[in-house]
Amino acid sequence: MIPPQPAPPSRILARFAAGLRLADVPAQVRERAKLHMLDAIGVGLASNAYEYARRAAAGIEAMGERGPCAVLGRAERLTVRDAALVNGILIHGLDFDDTHLASIVHPSAASLPCALSLAEAVGASGEDLLAAYLAGAETAIRVGGAVKGGFHHVGFHATGVVAHFASAIAAGRILRLDEDQIVAAQGIAGSTASGIQVFLEEGAWTKRFHAGWAAVAGITAARLAEHGFVGPSRPYEGRFGLFETHLQDKAGHVDMDYLTAGLADRWHFADTALKPYPVCHFIHGCADAAIDLHGQLEADDIVSVTALLPEPTLPIVAEPAAAKERPTTDYEAKFSAQFVIASCLLNGRFGLADLQPDALAHPRARTLARKVRCVADPETAFPTYFSGGVEVSLRDGRTLRRHVRVNSGAGERALGADAVAAKFMAAATMAVPTSQAEEIRDAVLALERIGVTDLAALLHRNG
Amino acid sequence: MIPPQPAPPSRILARFAAGLRLADVPAQVRERAKLHMLDAIGVGLASNAYEYARRAAAGIEAMGERGPCAVLGRAERLTVRDAALVNGILIHGLDFDDTHLASIVHPSAASLPCALSLAEAVGASGEDLLAAYLAGAETAIRVGGAVKGGFHHVGFHATGVVAHFASAIAAGRILRLDEDQIVAAQGIAGSTASGIQVFLEEGAWTKRFHAGWAAVAGITAARLAEHGFVGPSRPYEGRFGLFETHLQDKAGHVDMDYLTAGLADRWHFADTALKPYPVCHFIHGCADAAIDLHGQLEADDIVSVTALLPEPTLPIVAEPAAAKERPTTDYEAKFSAQFVIASCLLNGRFGLADLQPDALAHPRARTLARKVRCVADPETAFPTYFSGGVEVSLRDGRTLRRHVRVNSGAGERALGADAVAAKFMAAATMAVPTSQAEEIRDAVLALERIGVTDLAALLHRNG
Repeated sequence: MIPPQPAPPSRILARFAAGLRLADVPAQVRERAKLHMLDAIGVGLASNAYEYARRAAAGIEAMGERGPCAVLGRAERLTVRDAALVNGILIHGLDFDDTHLASIVHPSAASLPCALSLAEAVGASGEDLLAAYLAGAETAIRVGGAVKGGFHHVGFHATGVVAHFASAIAAGRILRLDEDQIVAAQGIAGSTASGIQVFLEEGAWTKRFHAGWAAVAGITAARLAEHGFVGPSRPYEGRFGLFETHLQDKAGHVDMDYLTAGLADRWHFADTALKPYPVCHFIHGCADAAIDLHGQLEADDIVSVTALLPEPTLPIVAEPAAAKERPTTDYEAKFSAQFVIASCLLNGRFGLADLQPDALAHPRARTLARKVRCVADPETAFPTYFSGGVEVSLRDGRTLRRHVRVNSGAGERALGADAVAAKFMAAATMAVPTSQAEEIRDAVLALERIGVTDLAALLHRNG
Repeated sequence: MIPPQPAPPSRILARFAAGLRLADVPAQVRERAKLHMLDAIGVGLASNAYEYARRAAAGIEAMGERGPCAVLGRAERLTVRDAALVNGILIHGLDFDDTHLASIVHPSAASLPCALSLAEAVGASGEDLLAAYLAGAETAIRVGGAVKGGFHHVGFHATGVVAHFASAIAAGRILRLDEDQIVAAQGIAGSTASGIQVFLEEGAWTKRFHAGWAAVAGITAARLAEHGFVGPSRPYEGRFGLFETHLQDKAGHVDMDYLTAGLADRWHFADTALKPYPVCHFIHGCADAAIDLHGQLEADDIVSVTALLPEPTLPIVAEPAAAKERPTTDYEAKFSAQFVIASCLLNGRFGLADLQPDALAHPRARTLARKVRCVADPETAFPTYFSGGVEVSLRDGRTLRRHVRVNSGAGERALGADAVAAKFMAAATMAVPTSQAEEIRDAVLALERIGVTDLAALLHRNG
């Protein structure tokens, strides 16, 4: 007798997505899901104040195609794929959206753009949107977590890669595809999964594009699968599959158990951190530490600063030092540990205003950033938490030290509902009137009881 | 004094594409370009007879969006991106389209879907379509040739990957973007470049999708770049760029000179081979040899067959042997050296009819396929040519041998204009009436003198 073979991961994920009923999701996870959607919509609305959002939307609108779907904070209504694309750029563009730390992916950016626009296009219920969003977000985390930082290590952008699978799952759930079809959709997503980090060299904008592009791919994959286009059934672990092609020599280190163990019972999504600061999540522990030290020193007395960061993040947020010390754009500044720590030490806070051109050009910040030396943190809890430490040597010979194990917004320091709502209102009102922002907030927090069409009607700019 | 730095490859390619005037292209290259376009359109039309084409088109049409652009042999007119996507699936779906052997890419599939639909959408001239198609096809070859089979080696589908850059270049040329914009478009294409070979495990259909998907990406990238979205300037060679991420440890072996040397003077496109047989190009030398031997033997007398193939192609067309000997679909059969060689020995030919279900199930072909053992060819001219050899041991003790260095359709054995036209007519009339096929043939061969709108009007199915 041949023993039964375990189902391949894509089938287990498909079964999870096809069978997910919101009533079976723990109440605490559902509540967190709405808070994370609210946060993502808020940062997406805020993006409209920035040039990249204007240029991206202009490029997509130049195609001349229009459709029924809302774009966050904009007047034009676009086709479902274009709305998802632009919403994805808006949600991830500021790098102010949520992060699942252990898997180093942005679950809301990976799932919500696809789920939201497709739910609107098909007139889905708020319940269905929440279920699809959660299935997609959990998939993003599972795929990212299985490779344990491997995508970043070899130069892929993990969120870009995993968002293709998350979007295929979310689209499959919205379209109510069956298990076989969702297997095929993931197989097709294996062919589109992409996103590389070459943007880091010069602060180019492509990272902002990855999650929205994945939403376009996920919708396409799901529609092809719905109509019987045959996708491979082992896109993750198969020969020439995702892990082999995208990790190559490191494919042997994949934690296959993380990919599917306990799906629908153990929600890794619940561990996702919201960002208090609009900078790369890797820097958050250091930002906390620097803000804590701000009240204990005069910036002009600082001789030198040693920043302790998780070793694997140094190539992304600290190197090459000469460039990181002198960011010329807000985007470069978000990925500069040196600049962010200097700014936090100077000002005792870090918000969107601290990325404006005058803030970047400020002589005191630039001088102090050049005094920050980044080294590996021997006490890091990375990747469970994005720990960080700051040691400041002062002119009088004293050294002040602060080490933060659990970055604010993560784990036991998760942002509560009031903090999320406050962050949302501050962000959303950069694009829409306060009354509209309040209506959006209330609609998202009541999502189980409304239709997505009603929510979407609030999201776009009126007139 | 700092010596002038050489421009990065994406800038050299952008300069080539932006500056390309058809009048500067050698007449022989222009004529070959039209023959290759004709061949691609023919195999694209023929695809309509197959289930994958019906399902792909149904999936895309289910989005409910319509536009001005023709789809080969179909009645519905779609948006520019959707038309390019479906045309890409049709052109590459049969694996009967052209191949540049040394770079192992399908240049027409990589460039034409994007160039054709976008040219139609903007009302470009036939001259502009030809120039854009050539710029894109040459780019596909340059990127593929620079890595010398490296994409295939690590499990990526080379045409899938390079078609993103080819499409961005073709789209940039059609939209008359300037050099900076075409640099940015390639940078964005670096974020979408994808396509893995996991489909090989089970004959899934995703390879068919890669070139069309790249066309969608290229059009999107060009429109974003046109409106100032900032792409990285070193998508190929930069830190965390294409070569580093997609080749990893083998990135050091890239032939950077091949990428850009002699652009606009030395047309590698002119070396592109057209396929006489609708099977993976790696098998063509062996198919030639087996067809030659057909007249010299009785198939029932065959005891065993040894096939000599280029060593790097064995994992793709010969392994695992147990599965390759028993293809269950036409697509698996196209990638089975064992089946193709058996069929050629039996029938003395290999055409689309030899991939029909009754041909795959034929007991004589199946029995003979199991007698074929594939080994590395010590005399191969691969990848310059797709050489192959067949050695047949007969019951009477004789061994017949045939080795083909230059596969038919390549190099000195290139298909001439009459042979291409004959292949086109046979393929096209699987989807459209003979009179319409003749009109298409004449229009493509007169492309410098007509507008793309006129050509496109002939390509779709009337009524």
